[in-house]
Amino acid sequence: MIYLDNAATTIKKPQCVKQAVFDAMDRLGNSARGMHGPALAAAREIYAAREKAAAFFGAGRAERTVFTSNATEALNIAIEGAIKPGMHVITTEAEHNSVLRPLYRKARKGVKLTIVKADNKGRILAEDIEKAICPETSWLFCTHASNVTGNLLPLVEIGKICRGKGVHLGVDVAQSGGCIPIDMGKTGIELLCFTGHKGLLGPQGTGGLCVGQDITLPPFKVGGSGIHSFEKEHPSIIPEALEAGTANGHSIAGLSAAFDFLKETKVENIQKHESCLMRIFYEQVEKIPGVTVYGDFEAEDRTAVVSLNIRDYDSKEMGDVLWREYDIAVRAGVHCAPLIHRALGTEKQGTIRFSFSWFNTEEEALQAAWAVKKLAF
Amino acid sequence: MIYLDNAATTIKKPQCVKQAVFDAMDRLGNSARGMHGPALAAAREIYAAREKAAAFFGAGRAERTVFTSNATEALNIAIEGAIKPGMHVITTEAEHNSVLRPLYRKARKGVKLTIVKADNKGRILAEDIEKAICPETSWLFCTHASNVTGNLLPLVEIGKICRGKGVHLGVDVAQSGGCIPIDMGKTGIELLCFTGHKGLLGPQGTGGLCVGQDITLPPFKVGGSGIHSFEKEHPSIIPEALEAGTANGHSIAGLSAAFDFLKETKVENIQKHESCLMRIFYEQVEKIPGVTVYGDFEAEDRTAVVSLNIRDYDSKEMGDVLWREYDIAVRAGVHCAPLIHRALGTEKQGTIRFSFSWFNTEEEALQAAWAVKKLAF
Repeated sequence: MIYLDNAATTIKKPQCVKQAVFDAMDRLGNSARGMHGPALAAAREIYAAREKAAAFFGAGRAERTVFTSNATEALNIAIEGAIKPGMHVITTEAEHNSVLRPLYRKARKGVKLTIVKADNKGRILAEDIEKAICPETSWLFCTHASNVTGNLLPLVEIGKICRGKGVHLGVDVAQSGGCIPIDMGKTGIELLCFTGHKGLLGPQGTGGLCVGQDITLPPFKVGGSGIHSFEKEHPSIIPEALEAGTANGHSIAGLSAAFDFLKETKVENIQKHESCLMRIFYEQVEKIPGVTVYGDFEAEDRTAVVSLNIRDYDSKEMGDVLWREYDIAVRAGVHCAPLIHRALGTEKQGTIRFSFSWFNTEEEALQAAWAVKKLAF
Repeated sequence: MIYLDNAATTIKKPQCVKQAVFDAMDRLGNSARGMHGPALAAAREIYAAREKAAAFFGAGRAERTVFTSNATEALNIAIEGAIKPGMHVITTEAEHNSVLRPLYRKARKGVKLTIVKADNKGRILAEDIEKAICPETSWLFCTHASNVTGNLLPLVEIGKICRGKGVHLGVDVAQSGGCIPIDMGKTGIELLCFTGHKGLLGPQGTGGLCVGQDITLPPFKVGGSGIHSFEKEHPSIIPEALEAGTANGHSIAGLSAAFDFLKETKVENIQKHESCLMRIFYEQVEKIPGVTVYGDFEAEDRTAVVSLNIRDYDSKEMGDVLWREYDIAVRAGVHCAPLIHRALGTEKQGTIRFSFSWFNTEEEALQAAWAVKKLAF
């Protein structure tokens, strides 16, 4: 099998990640729920993972990194908690439903929402974001990278604009974490939402939220916290405020090992390798008659995603054929990001998405391009 | 080490559970996010786990079993979704903060909350629940078993009363799932919230919610759903309504293996074994001068939990000594269940809690009792 659906989840994990999860299931008690060895081992394991995540994303104090079950949960906590009725909030057409739907829910409760348009290459321009800002604007919530086109949003520029205008910045790095270097401090991100099981190469069931020093978020879920048991309200201090119930110590141990792997391998090397595969594939397919490739391939940086269509063929059908006849796993159809499909004109057709990871090879990229060529002729 | 903190998390998992998680990390794609082999394998794996969970709890259709990251999340979804302002809701003093705090949050938003008192043995009587019901009562939310005393609530009787009075019944089985047979159909439970990592012997990061056929719950978290991508609202059909973002396929594969293990081992056998250890321990410690044991040991059924104190010694200090000098892991202090501590008069002292699992032995129970004796003299 050639697995090229890494933007959905990376199926090949480093051996150390798998081993860490396996070992944790024999070793870890319930974190913050007891003072014996296994409970303390769990607490230490999770704290170490917080430190690694915070360092990885340039996020400051480890205590301000909170673990969730996926990026969607992190985004729900962030958006539900940070945005109050009456605020003006900006987002973009590049967003996944994990950003859009929490914002739409807020909009139904009196938040004013502006959605910055993408151009026909799916690009979001910093100047358009600047234009959308008004004196009432409190937050910009946006993705770092489109899961459909692989385009990056100009985060450094956007960060500067937000700081200049006093607008808070929340970013969804589900598509870029582990693939593109990210630094909260340098970009001015105040809420960073990540998932563990994609580019970070960790287990499913992990994700998190790095909360800037000046941001307060109320609990989203409430319950046992291991501290302040006699208070009726869930603790308001982070991380406890945003982590109710037993932590997923086993999977967080795997994520922790994944951060070690990323530190050793270096995100810059990963980016170089994935970009190389993506460019090899792109250069082969973009010249095939009848193939339409979406997104901006002139930009210097992008994620290793290539979305395309073959003539007017149904993308899902093409995805099926790639799987059944060529043993190539891709994602086809619409990708939970409705507005970018509208911008690209692929609302009906969807796209066939090829996404590369550290563990893919040049040979696989070429074989996938060859399969597209066969389908187009 | 003698690990007797199984009511917090079982540290010994069946080999098949660990292996299933390990293998899943190489095998599963993103469930409901693609039509290739690994994505379908994830969808099938999760569906199989739904079927097993539903069968295990006598819950009817598999689609009405939803996976969450722990019992607390399940309880938040259940309580936040089922209870509307203006309703009258009943709960009990036996509850964990995972039930109390979501209910207190509702009470702050106009829900009328009655808390049924426990007696000095921590017992909740069905007749007291019946007395608390008034024509406005919509829901009873209660635990199946106290995490402090191990007492069971009389669920069959409670279920009958609720059905008779037209009151919906939601139950937290975090302490009893996998330890005591439970049947939603027979008891009339309409919302059953479970955790995977305690008596069910699955991985941390798993839990869920079995939703009765007549109960509708709105989404708690919203985002990507794999279906209806172009709609602004998160899908309202279960399970998608209550599972936003990428599912924790890896850990759910482990939970699925745990259900196989439980089916083969039989909960009745587990209950018998755990009860036996608990009785052996209880009979040794209850006669030690200076030891106070909490809870009702005359009841036929209870979970394998023994909470005690030694004279007026600080329970946390005793827990530390047990760990450092006897290599015995217990939970000491207050156990995130404030009202039952008040009922037992252990608000300040807390308790030392010994909790047994399928993997503990008679020898361990006797050694733990011997250690208590040493501490009491």
